[in-house]
Amino acid sequence: MTDIPRRILVLGGARSGKSRHAEARGAGHRGPKRYIATAEAGDEEMAARIAAHRADRGAGWETIEAPRDLVSALRAAMAADAFVLVDCVTVWLSNVMLAEEDPKAAVAALLDVLEEARGTVVLVSNEVGLGIVPDNALARRFRDVAGRANQQLAAACDEVVFVAAGLPLTLKG
Amino acid sequence: MTDIPRRILVLGGARSGKSRHAEARGAGHRGPKRYIATAEAGDEEMAARIAAHRADRGAGWETIEAPRDLVSALRAAMAADAFVLVDCVTVWLSNVMLAEEDPKAAVAALLDVLEEARGTVVLVSNEVGLGIVPDNALARRFRDVAGRANQQLAAACDEVVFVAAGLPLTLKG
Amino acid sequence: MTDIPRRILVLGGARSGKSRHAEARGAGHRGPKRYIATAEAGDEEMAARIAAHRADRGAGWETIEAPRDLVSALRAAMAADAFVLVDCVTVWLSNVMLAEEDPKAAVAALLDVLEEARGTVVLVSNEVGLGIVPDNALARRFRDVAGRANQQLAAACDEVVFVAAGLPLTLKG
Repeated sequence: MTDIPRRILVLGGARSGKSRHAEARGAGHRGPKRYIATAEAGDEEMAARIAAHRADRGAGWETIEAPRDLVSALRAAMAADAFVLVDCVTVWLSNVMLAEEDPKAAVAALLDVLEEARGTVVLVSNEVGLGIVPDNALARRFRDVAGRANQQLAAACDEVVFVAAGLPLTLKG
Repeated sequence: MTDIPRRILVLGGARSGKSRHAEARGAGHRGPKRYIATAEAGDEEMAARIAAHRADRGAGWETIEAPRDLVSALRAAMAADAFVLVDCVTVWLSNVMLAEEDPKAAVAALLDVLEEARGTVVLVSNEVGLGIVPDNALARRFRDVAGRANQQLAAACDEVVFVAAGLPLTLKG
Repeated sequence: MTDIPRRILVLGGARSGKSRHAEARGAGHRGPKRYIATAEAGDEEMAARIAAHRADRGAGWETIEAPRDLVSALRAAMAADAFVLVDCVTVWLSNVMLAEEDPKAAVAALLDVLEEARGTVVLVSNEVGLGIVPDNALARRFRDVAGRANQQLAAACDEVVFVAAGLPLTLKG
């Protein structure tokens, strides 16, 4: 426990082990561990994914569901003695866009909360820009929004890790 | 030549130079060099790809075709003095799924063989999770299977290398 | 300013911050700074992207448009005291293929110009092979062309950097 906040961004592809890496970072933590889940169990496939993720996590996590209101959930969860994990930024941005809210404003609000961070905050986010240009315009727009958000979050965080095949590679910090 | 097995996972995107990197690792090898090919020349495009790959390889390789039965092919090919290259895990997993076999069981069997590894075993595998979420459910399922397999293989290997634009980046080992 | 040319390849995904990184490399440069743009404002979306990129660049850049004739544009722009930025190779290759020219010959000509490089030449290029295999054959072919080009350019350059979330990772140099 320290007075200096620690903001960590964990980037990676689908099924890269990024969530597991983020959770493992909290293994020795003595204070409260809070998991902010942004996925909604909208269909069976997603419900199965969420259940699998929950089973993967060890005990000792308090789960907070925040498909769209991540900013206030994070503000409420942060504390000098807390380890807060947001899983994940990309799904939240997708929910924000589906609700036809402005993703730029949403990211700006998230950056404001990070400025006031206390304790440890770990943000998990997907890298989605390394494939071929998507056919449909919405996917291209989402790719831009997610990529730009990752750049801004990386600039705001104290540490940035890229995870591939479960193995971390430090990009910053 | 040594009694200590060496298991190497070479990850990378399409046309990243991962196969060439894997083959180059065997350049100075004095014992038998065995190349286990998992691609099937199902259509013209694939036949051309296979022929190009074969032409890229230098002489001195024994080629073994194992589109689906990778596990026994690898078991038979491994030897204390052998350099065995599997190219690639991702295509094998795709063949397994097309044949409606269970990919989890297939990967578990591959991990068992790796436990008994002798000599040098190099596995080439694609990273496929860094693009936008695919539209179709089968592609999403494949992405999960391939990503999970990469994590498990990375944990089981002594060395893991990520190749981009022909340049290796060591993730482990 | 030096007599030794410096060729830099900046790889990254969409909205990874690769262009910004490339531009920042020229920040302290005293001689001419030349920006070779390969994108064409064919539709509104692309026009908006180009305008945003131009606004992102600081002052002090001379802009040269070269959607297809990159090779002569680069040859003309290079000079012992110049910092030349090509943004980007991938879009140029896409233009070459759309014009039904031979991408292999085009890349070979680009490699020839790099051999004669003077001053600093920075090439920005997309990594497009880390997603799921694309459905359509043209996208698969493009992925092969772009991946092969990246390998050849990486071999020809003195420095290769991979950018993710705005953060550079040195692969070579």
